[in-house]
Amino acid sequence: MDLLGLLALGELLAFERIALDARLAPDLGRRAQLSEAAVGEIRNYRLLADRIAELGADPAEAMAPFKEAIRSFDASTAPRDWLEALVKVYVGDAVADDFFRAVAARLDSGDRAIVEQVLQAGPAAEFAAAEIRAAVETDASAAGRLSLWGRRLVGEGINRAQVVAASHEHLAGLIAADGGSVDAVLRHLTRAHQERMKAVGLNN
Amino acid sequence: MDLLGLLALGELLAFERIALDARLAPDLGRRAQLSEAAVGEIRNYRLLADRIAELGADPAEAMAPFKEAIRSFDASTAPRDWLEALVKVYVGDAVADDFFRAVAARLDSGDRAIVEQVLQAGPAAEFAAAEIRAAVETDASAAGRLSLWGRRLVGEGINRAQVVAASHEHLAGLIAADGGSVDAVLRHLTRAHQERMKAVGLNN
Repeated sequence: MDLLGLLALGELLAFERIALDARLAPDLGRRAQLSEAAVGEIRNYRLLADRIAELGADPAEAMAPFKEAIRSFDASTAPRDWLEALVKVYVGDAVADDFFRAVAARLDSGDRAIVEQVLQAGPAAEFAAAEIRAAVETDASAAGRLSLWGRRLVGEGINRAQVVAASHEHLAGLIAADGGSVDAVLRHLTRAHQERMKAVGLNN
Repeated sequence: MDLLGLLALGELLAFERIALDARLAPDLGRRAQLSEAAVGEIRNYRLLADRIAELGADPAEAMAPFKEAIRSFDASTAPRDWLEALVKVYVGDAVADDFFRAVAARLDSGDRAIVEQVLQAGPAAEFAAAEIRAAVETDASAAGRLSLWGRRLVGEGINRAQVVAASHEHLAGLIAADGGSVDAVLRHLTRAHQERMKAVGLNN
């Protein structure tokens, strides 16, 4: 339940953040494209909230313990321009997907089915990846700045994840159920992040 | 095309505004409900943008002339709390629907079909109306404050509409095609607004 609450809140706040950051777009066409892509996140939220309700809990209550961690992550990583906003969408979505994959094996079959559906989505990340790739190709100087920004996002994300894991023992146990450690999961996420930065022309 | 551009931008910015104002919610459950309802607006945007493209124009270009009017309306009517945000959703959606209805008769059949679809939606307005009604029932003092706020929203909206009509002759002609005047359309919108304020327990 902790896990579903954390994931549901992550999707809900990703939706709000993307709709908000779309206003940084250089033109109305791209602004609309990013806003439309944000709908994928709120659909994921609905799948997770329905599952929480099905299990007899209240989605708002299940999400509440994680509000401060995500809020403080967002406050410390507010993008200053359109490309930084896109890197945050791309990195954030991807890390969330990796996290889903890492925990999927430990869930029962009902929850696993939801995770598979959630992993299918991701129009916001696809749009962001294409835009970043194009920007880096036409302006090589953007690559250095955005690579640094990507590292900062992942660093801040790992900090918050460690705080959350430390204060929710049950969650930490679930994440590291195979005898692995939370640190091992975070190292895996970092490696996957580095691969993905390369895929859009950024360094790690 | 002017008309479709104005309506498309109205829906796109309504989506962003609702996603943004959802953060004023007193709890995560209602915050999520309003965010989910915002999806109706972005769907309407997509219908209108597709129609603009079908007619051989670029949606971003069709919307651009109206950006300043809507931006300045939003800047002068930023809600200070959750109930003000809901009244803005309710009044804004309803006035947009009235406007759609007023112009629908003047459109060709392809555009009329889109307007009918757009008029079917409105989960955000329904959610807002139910919340306002409940708030006014439990706290009578809220009614006076929100009634005043509703009048202010409509006043500001009519101001901007007059500016837009004055600077887009073709649009003004289309709106008042039956020999009526833009003023008559605005008077009609005002009357319909008053009925709707009553429906949620507010005065006009």
